Amino acid sequence: MKPVRYGMIGGGQGAFIGGIHRTAAAIAGNWQLVAGAFSSTPEKSKASGAEIGVDPARTYGSWAEMIAREAELPADVRIEAVSIVTPNHMHAPPAIAALEAGLDVIIDKPLANTMDNARAIAEAALRSGRRIAVTHTYTGYPLVKQARELVAGGQFGKVRRVMVKYTQDWLSRASDLENNKQAAWRVDPNQSGDAGAFGDIGTHAANLVEFITGERIASICAELTMLPGRHIDDDGSALFRLSGGGKGTLVASQVLVGDANDLAISVYCDEAGLHWRQEQPNSMTIGRRDKPTEIWNAGANRAYLATDVRAVQRTPGGHPEGYLEAFANIYRAFGEELRGGASAHTPGYATMDDTLSGMRFLAASLESSRQGAVWVDL
Amino acid sequence: MKPVRYGMIGGGQGAFIGGIHRTAAAIAGNWQLVAGAFSSTPEKSKASGAEIGVDPARTYGSWAEMIAREAELPADVRIEAVSIVTPNHMHAPPAIAALEAGLDVIIDKPLANTMDNARAIAEAALRSGRRIAVTHTYTGYPLVKQARELVAGGQFGKVRRVMVKYTQDWLSRASDLENNKQAAWRVDPNQSGDAGAFGDIGTHAANLVEFITGERIASICAELTMLPGRHIDDDGSALFRLSGGGKGTLVASQVLVGDANDLAISVYCDEAGLHWRQEQPNSMTIGRRDKPTEIWNAGANRAYLATDVRAVQRTPGGHPEGYLEAFANIYRAFGEELRGGASAHTPGYATMDDTLSGMRFLAASLESSRQGAVWVDL
Amino acid sequence: MKPVRYGMIGGGQGAFIGGIHRTAAAIAGNWQLVAGAFSSTPEKSKASGAEIGVDPARTYGSWAEMIAREAELPADVRIEAVSIVTPNHMHAPPAIAALEAGLDVIIDKPLANTMDNARAIAEAALRSGRRIAVTHTYTGYPLVKQARELVAGGQFGKVRRVMVKYTQDWLSRASDLENNKQAAWRVDPNQSGDAGAFGDIGTHAANLVEFITGERIASICAELTMLPGRHIDDDGSALFRLSGGGKGTLVASQVLVGDANDLAISVYCDEAGLHWRQEQPNSMTIGRRDKPTEIWNAGANRAYLATDVRAVQRTPGGHPEGYLEAFANIYRAFGEELRGGASAHTPGYATMDDTLSGMRFLAASLESSRQGAVWVDL
Amino acid sequence: MKPVRYGMIGGGQGAFIGGIHRTAAAIAGNWQLVAGAFSSTPEKSKASGAEIGVDPARTYGSWAEMIAREAELPADVRIEAVSIVTPNHMHAPPAIAALEAGLDVIIDKPLANTMDNARAIAEAALRSGRRIAVTHTYTGYPLVKQARELVAGGQFGKVRRVMVKYTQDWLSRASDLENNKQAAWRVDPNQSGDAGAFGDIGTHAANLVEFITGERIASICAELTMLPGRHIDDDGSALFRLSGGGKGTLVASQVLVGDANDLAISVYCDEAGLHWRQEQPNSMTIGRRDKPTEIWNAGANRAYLATDVRAVQRTPGGHPEGYLEAFANIYRAFGEELRGGASAHTPGYATMDDTLSGMRFLAASLESSRQGAVWVDL
Repeated sequence: MKPVRYGMIGGGQGAFIGGIHRTAAAIAGNWQLVAGAFSSTPEKSKASGAEIGVDPARTYGSWAEMIAREAELPADVRIEAVSIVTPNHMHAPPAIAALEAGLDVIIDKPLANTMDNARAIAEAALRSGRRIAVTHTYTGYPLVKQARELVAGGQFGKVRRVMVKYTQDWLSRASDLENNKQAAWRVDPNQSGDAGAFGDIGTHAANLVEFITGERIASICAELTMLPGRHIDDDGSALFRLSGGGKGTLVASQVLVGDANDLAISVYCDEAGLHWRQEQPNSMTIGRRDKPTEIWNAGANRAYLATDVRAVQRTPGGHPEGYLEAFANIYRAFGEELRGGASAHTPGYATMDDTLSGMRFLAASLESSRQGAVWVDL
Repeated sequence: MKPVRYGMIGGGQGAFIGGIHRTAAAIAGNWQLVAGAFSSTPEKSKASGAEIGVDPARTYGSWAEMIAREAELPADVRIEAVSIVTPNHMHAPPAIAALEAGLDVIIDKPLANTMDNARAIAEAALRSGRRIAVTHTYTGYPLVKQARELVAGGQFGKVRRVMVKYTQDWLSRASDLENNKQAAWRVDPNQSGDAGAFGDIGTHAANLVEFITGERIASICAELTMLPGRHIDDDGSALFRLSGGGKGTLVASQVLVGDANDLAISVYCDEAGLHWRQEQPNSMTIGRRDKPTEIWNAGANRAYLATDVRAVQRTPGGHPEGYLEAFANIYRAFGEELRGGASAHTPGYATMDDTLSGMRFLAASLESSRQGAVWVDL
Repeated sequence: MKPVRYGMIGGGQGAFIGGIHRTAAAIAGNWQLVAGAFSSTPEKSKASGAEIGVDPARTYGSWAEMIAREAELPADVRIEAVSIVTPNHMHAPPAIAALEAGLDVIIDKPLANTMDNARAIAEAALRSGRRIAVTHTYTGYPLVKQARELVAGGQFGKVRRVMVKYTQDWLSRASDLENNKQAAWRVDPNQSGDAGAFGDIGTHAANLVEFITGERIASICAELTMLPGRHIDDDGSALFRLSGGGKGTLVASQVLVGDANDLAISVYCDEAGLHWRQEQPNSMTIGRRDKPTEIWNAGANRAYLATDVRAVQRTPGGHPEGYLEAFANIYRAFGEELRGGASAHTPGYATMDDTLSGMRFLAASLESSRQGAVWVDL
Repeated sequence: MKPVRYGMIGGGQGAFIGGIHRTAAAIAGNWQLVAGAFSSTPEKSKASGAEIGVDPARTYGSWAEMIAREAELPADVRIEAVSIVTPNHMHAPPAIAALEAGLDVIIDKPLANTMDNARAIAEAALRSGRRIAVTHTYTGYPLVKQARELVAGGQFGKVRRVMVKYTQDWLSRASDLENNKQAAWRVDPNQSGDAGAFGDIGTHAANLVEFITGERIASICAELTMLPGRHIDDDGSALFRLSGGGKGTLVASQVLVGDANDLAISVYCDEAGLHWRQEQPNSMTIGRRDKPTEIWNAGANRAYLATDVRAVQRTPGGHPEGYLEAFANIYRAFGEELRGGASAHTPGYATMDDTLSGMRFLAASLESSRQGAVWVDL
C-alpha cells in the first residue's frame, strides 16, 4: 500500500504543532510529506521547507499557490491530501479550498474558530465528497479505545457519572502572554475564536467524554473565568448531563500551577469505574465492587486487550508508547481509510459529527457562562 | 494531666462509629471511658457495656438516666463529658441535655439532622458555656493541617480553584438498602435529615475545603440525584464559589463503583497546587511552575513540617499513621482544650462555626438541586 | 474477656519504642498497663511512670524489683506478663527472670543481642512453660497475612524469587551518631550485638521473607559495609537461597538517603508475582501473566480477603490503618493466646522458632561478610 | 543537513526489533532507509522489502550482496551506513564486512555473541576508522541522561549503593519456547551466546548502572538459574562492586510473572537517592534527607532539566514520550556524529568501550555462576 502524499499548510519555524504532525505521519508509516506552504510569508515558508527537507520546488509561498501548482503535476506525483496546522482562525479558507480542489484534509483541532466556519467546512466536505479528519489526539491512545470498547460492550452497565479535567499551567502568570508565539494567537479572540482554555483544551476533554461513553453532552452549566487583564477564558468548570442520563463535571484550565498537561477522566458505570490519565497513558484502572482493583496495561501482545486496540500499538507490554504514537494513530487510521483499507471496529479518529459536537459544547459553555452559569442545551 | 472521664451515648453492638470513637480516645491517651448508654434499649446497652468492658454499675439504660445518675457521683469520679455517636436525628436531645447538665460534648458529624436542631445545639452551648467538638475526622490528618498552614502562610498566593471529591460505592446497588444497619438510617430522611450522600460525606468534603483554604463556600450550584426507588440523594455534584473569589467543583457520591472512601482534594493557588488523598494520607503533592513536583511526607521527625503538624504524630517518617490516628487527634485536641492546655496554632477540631457552615452548605445544596441546579448563596 | 495486666520494662522518657508498645496495647484492647520499671535509674523510672499515668506505687526502680514486688500482690491484681523494650543487650536478663517467675513475655525484636542469649531465653521459656512473643511488627499488617495465605494456598505455585529491601537514611551522615539516643546503643556492638543495620532492620526483612513464603532462608552470601569511622554495619546486601529452592536478594541499610522506612518485598511464584511496601501498607499488587494487574486493598469489609485477614482490621476499606494497628495486632494475638481464645489460621506473631531463624540469619550474614562475602548455610 | 542513507541487515517479516529500528530512525529524522538485506533467504528478503517500501532494486538477497552492489552506486546514492538487527551470533560477520567496506555501523545490542567476536568487531572498527553505535536503548531516555548529569555534577556526592532490576515474564512457562521466533534464538546457546537473560537484558541493566554512575562494575558475584529443561539462564541475581567503591545488587530474569519489561534502578549517593523506572520513563524521583521528595518530570520545556536533556525531547512536559523516542535518540545522536554535528555533553549512545564493558560483565557473571556464585573481577 503506497503512502498518502500530502502537503502541509502552516507548521513553519517556531511552530510546535507542525512538527508534531510531521513526526506523527512518519511514525504512522502510511503518509509521505512531499510539499508545503509552511508560513504566511514566502521567505519563511522556503526556509522552513529547507530545514524540514521538502523539495524546494514544492515548497510554496502560500497555500493557494500550493493547491494550484500541485494540481498541475502528474496524478501519481501530486499531493492527495493536506495537513492544516495553522492558527484556528486560518483553518476554514484552506480547508474549504483544498476540499473543493479534490483533496482530503487532516486538520488540527478545533475544526474552526467559529461555529459558522465549522459548518462551512463541513458543508464543503459534503459537497466535494472528500474526507476530513480532525486530530483529537487523545482518542488515539490505545487504552482510550479500550475504555470505549469496554463501555460499549455493555457489561459495565449504564454510565452514571463522569469526571474529566484537562489542566495546564503555562498561562498561570500575567507575563505568560508576552513573548510567546503559542500564547499570542491562542488568547487572541480574533485568531482563536471566542474561547480560550475551553476551546483549546476543554474541547479535548469533551471529546474524550463522548468518545469513551459513546454518548453526547446534552446540556451544560459552565462558569468560565480569566486572570485580571485577559479577555478570554483561561480557566473554567462545568456541570453537564449526558444524553443517556448520566451526570458529569468538567474542569479546563491553563492557569493551574503544577499541572503540565493533565487530562484525566473517570467514567463510573453501574458495575465498574474506569480511570485514565494522559500523563501515564499506558495503564488504566478499573474499580469494581467487592473485587480487587484492576490495572489494564498497554501492549501489542496483551491478550486481554481488544484486537483493534492491540493493532494500533507498535511495541509489546512494558515498552511505553506516548503522545506521538497516539497522534500517529490518527494519521494511520485516516491514511488507511483514504486507501480504502480501514475496517476497525473502534473509530480511528474524530468524525465530522464528533467535531461539530465539540463546537456545540464550546458555544453552549460560552453562552452558559455569559448568563451567569445557567443550564444551556447543546 | 489526668484523662477526661467520659460517657458514651450510642455505639452499642453492631454500630461502626462507636468503636472508632472509643479506639480514637484510647490512642489520644487523654480520655477515659467510664460510663455509657450504648443503646436505646436497656438490655442491649448492658450487653454492649459488658463487651466493651465498662463498669456494669455505670452502664445505663438511657442517656437521660446516665446524665442524671452520674451527677450524683463524686466530682472526681463522675463523667465530665459525653461522646454522642447516635444516628443524626438523635443528636440534638442528648447534646442539649448534656450541655445543660454542665457536660462538655464531643459529637459525631454532622452536628444535627436539621438546621434548626443544629442551631438549638449551638444555642445550648452558648447558654451553658460548655464546649462542643464535632468530629470532622479528616481535618485530624497531619498533612491536612500542613496544607492549611501552607495556604495560610501566604507564599502560595490566593486560592484560584479547588477540586474535591468524596466518593464511595457501598450503596451502588439497589439491594444495598436491605439488611444493612448502617444504610437503614442514613438513607431514611426521618433519621438522617433530608440529605443522603451530601449530608453524610459531602459535608466532610465541604469542611475539608474550608479548613485548608481558610475561606467559606459562599455560593453553590448543585445537582443531587439518586438511584431509582430511593428518596434521598446518593450522588451529586456542584460548582461553588469561595468567599475569596476562587472557584470549585465538588462531587459526593455513595454509588460510584470501585471507590471505597475516596476523599481527594486539589487546591490550586497563584504559585502552587496542592494535592491530598485520604486513602494515601501520609503524603501530599505540591506542584509548582517550572520546578520539580514535591512530595511532602508525614512523620513526627520531618524537619520541614510545621511544629504543630509534627506534634500530632506518634511515629517517625515511614511508619504510616491512618484514620484512627486522625480521629484520635480530634479527641486529643479537644481533651487538651478541656484541660486548658491547648495552644496549637492550627485548629485541632471543627469549631461550632465550621459546623454551622457545613449545615448551610448542605441546606444550600439541597435548595439548589430542588430548583434545578441554580446558584444559591450560603 | 478481661485484659491481660502487664508491666513494662524500659520505655521511659526519650525512648521511642516504649510509647509505641503502649499505644499498640491500647489499640489492641485486650491489654492493661498496670506497672513498670521504665528506666535503669529509679528517678527516671518514677518520672516516666508519672507521665505515662501508671500508679506510682507500682512504678519500680528496676525490673528485678518489679518482678519481686508484683508477686506479692493478689492474684487478680498483679501483673501477668511483661513487655520488654530495653536495648538489645538488656533483653535476656529480664526475659529469663520474668519467665522463671511465671510471667508471659512480649519482647521487642530482635530477641537478644547474641545467639547465646537468644538460646538462653528460648530455654527459659521451655523450662518455665511460659510463652514469648517477639514483635516483628510488619507481620502484623493485614495484607502481609493475606500474602502469606495466598502463597500457602498453593495456587500461585512455587516461590521462584524474592526481592526484599529495608532501607532508611537516619544514619546517613557521620554526625548522626552524636546526640542521638536511638543511634547511640544501636550502633554500639556492646549493646546492640555485633550487627548494626542487619540486626536492627535486616532481621525484619528476613522475617518478612520467611513469613510470606512459609520457607526458611537456607544459605546466604552477604556483604556488609559501614561509613568510615563506624564499627558495625550500617548497610549491606545479600544473595540468598530459600529452603524450597527459590532465590533471593536482600538489602538492609540505614544510610540510603531519601528512604525513611522503606521495607518492600516482591515474591514471584510460578503463576503470580506479589508486591507489598510498608510505607503504603493498605494495598498489595499481584501481577499475572496475560492478565490485568490486580490491586488488593485492605479493609475489614473486603469480601475477597481471607477471614483471618478481615478479622484483624478495625475499619472498612478506604480508612487506612497503619503501623500502630499492625503493632496492635501482635499484642492482640498474643493476648488472645494468653487468654486461650486464639485460633487464627495465620500466625498472629513471630514464634520462637521464627525468631531463632532470624538470629541464625544474622549470624550467617555476619560470618559471610567477614569471609569476604562467601556462601554460608544457616 | 542531509539524512544518512542506510541499509538494514535483518529485520524481515516476523522480526520485532527490525521494525523498531526503522521507526526509531524515522522519528530521529536524520536517517533514510534506502536498501536492505532483510532475511537470510532472498525470497523472504524481497517480500519484506516490498512490505516495508524499499526499492526492489535495492532489496538484496544477502548482506554480502548488499555491501558489494551498493558500492557500485554513485557516491551520493549508495548507502553510508548499515543497521544490523540479526540474531546475536550473526552480528560479527556483517559488521566486520561493513566496516571494512567503509560503512558506519549501528547494531542492536549485545555487540556480539562471544567476547572474541566482540573484540573482532572492535578491532575492525579501529582498523577501518569507521564508527559503531550499539543500541543500548535505555540510555536514550531523557531522564536517564538527566540522572547521569546529576551524578556527574558532584553535588550528590559519591555513589554508595545501586539497586537495578530488569525483569520480564515472557519465558515464565515451559511452553514459551515452542512456536516463538523471538524465544527460539534467544535461548539457543549457538545463536545467542552462552548467556540467556543475563545477555539479553542483564547487559541493559549493567549498561544503565555504568551510564548513570559514570563508573564501571569492577567485580561481581552472580548466580544464574533456569527453569527445568532449559540450557541457558532465564533468571539470575548478583552482588557487585563499583569501581568507585559503591556496592550494588542486580536481578535479571525472563521468568518473573507479572513483569512485562520492568527495568528499574535506584542510585543512592551521599546526599541524594535517585529512582527511575522504564515503564514510567517520564518521571524520576529524587529523595533527600530531611527534605520533600522531588519528582523530576520530562519535557522539552522544563527549565530545570539540563540543556542536553531538553534537546533530545520532542514535546513539552505532560506529553509523554516513550521507548521509540528513546530509541530514536540513539539514532539521532549517531547520525549527528556521522554528519559531524554532535557536541552534546552527555553521550548520545553507548561507546565501544561501554559495550565491551557489558561483554565483560556477562562473561564474569557466567564465570561466577559456574563456580557456585563466587566473586569474579571484570
